[in-house]
Amino acid sequence: MVMRILGIDPGLRVTGYGVVDIVESQQIYVASGVIRSNSDASLPDRLHTLFSGLCELAELYKPQVAVVEKVFVNVNPQSTLLLGQARGAVLTALTHSGLAVTEYTALQIKQAIVGHGKANKEQVQEMVKRLLKLPAHPSADAADALAAALTHAQSSKLLDALAAKDLPTSIFKTRTRKGRTSWK
Amino acid sequence: MVMRILGIDPGLRVTGYGVVDIVESQQIYVASGVIRSNSDASLPDRLHTLFSGLCELAELYKPQVAVVEKVFVNVNPQSTLLLGQARGAVLTALTHSGLAVTEYTALQIKQAIVGHGKANKEQVQEMVKRLLKLPAHPSADAADALAAALTHAQSSKLLDALAAKDLPTSIFKTRTRKGRTSWK
Repeated sequence: MVMRILGIDPGLRVTGYGVVDIVESQQIYVASGVIRSNSDASLPDRLHTLFSGLCELAELYKPQVAVVEKVFVNVNPQSTLLLGQARGAVLTALTHSGLAVTEYTALQIKQAIVGHGKANKEQVQEMVKRLLKLPAHPSADAADALAAALTHAQSSKLLDALAAKDLPTSIFKTRTRKGRTSWK
Repeated sequence: MVMRILGIDPGLRVTGYGVVDIVESQQIYVASGVIRSNSDASLPDRLHTLFSGLCELAELYKPQVAVVEKVFVNVNPQSTLLLGQARGAVLTALTHSGLAVTEYTALQIKQAIVGHGKANKEQVQEMVKRLLKLPAHPSADAADALAAALTHAQSSKLLDALAAKDLPTSIFKTRTRKGRTSWK
């Protein structure tokens, strides 16, 4: 089974992207980089740069699925509005390109890639480098996008394994009646 | 001179639109309405509904210019993020359709249409009805979109008049050296 995943870390100034192939149980690096918008241009023009850049990436790499980091509100409301507009342009480009879009929170991505939700940017970059056997660290924006793609790869592999029933049931954490956590 | 203007009042749940023709110095109503997204659908799907709806409107009415109400941050950060994403999808649809986009704040629109910045929704609806000689009040979302289009019509007419130099110079308000305002 080959699945190609396009991961996106949306931002108005810089939007990171990463393309990963899942071939059997291997995660293979395909491409990564950033789309930058000109901060001197008007907002509609900047959003159009993101939109057309993502449409070109979808056309070039033909992924089966897109994964976008889910964002939370920023401390600065004006930044929240700008990020929201960038995210609107990104999601629109992906659906316009016919891609199914899955969203993960930064917490879910850090837990899947580094193992805990409090990982910093450098730890994410290091794990992305290791998991994809890269010769060097990708930039922080590209690493976040690759991390989003890898999170989906891991969750897809888990779902496949569940479907094939080749996982021992012991990995499922359940809560006992007494409220304690046990491994069943 | 005929100019067709598409006004938009963006929102994730309801996006209002209004189309106005400027023929000589007349403002003529062409169409108005709303695009609704299904609140049970995923965010990418809802944004796609806005995007494709606006692309269809641009294709159907072939406006020369689009006018969008500029938004300010909401008291609720989560609402700001949702509105930002809707606005991103709207602006992307307009630029994707090849339209030049002009933005006005709600204050500018109210001042242009009602004459003061503190006008309420009913006053905007009433003035839009009068200016466009409509048989009834348009819905609030459609009225805001028509008001945005009319604001641009008025500002375009003023610019045209200035270019033609058929306005007396006395309308220009200037500030004297003493800091008082005078009519020169």
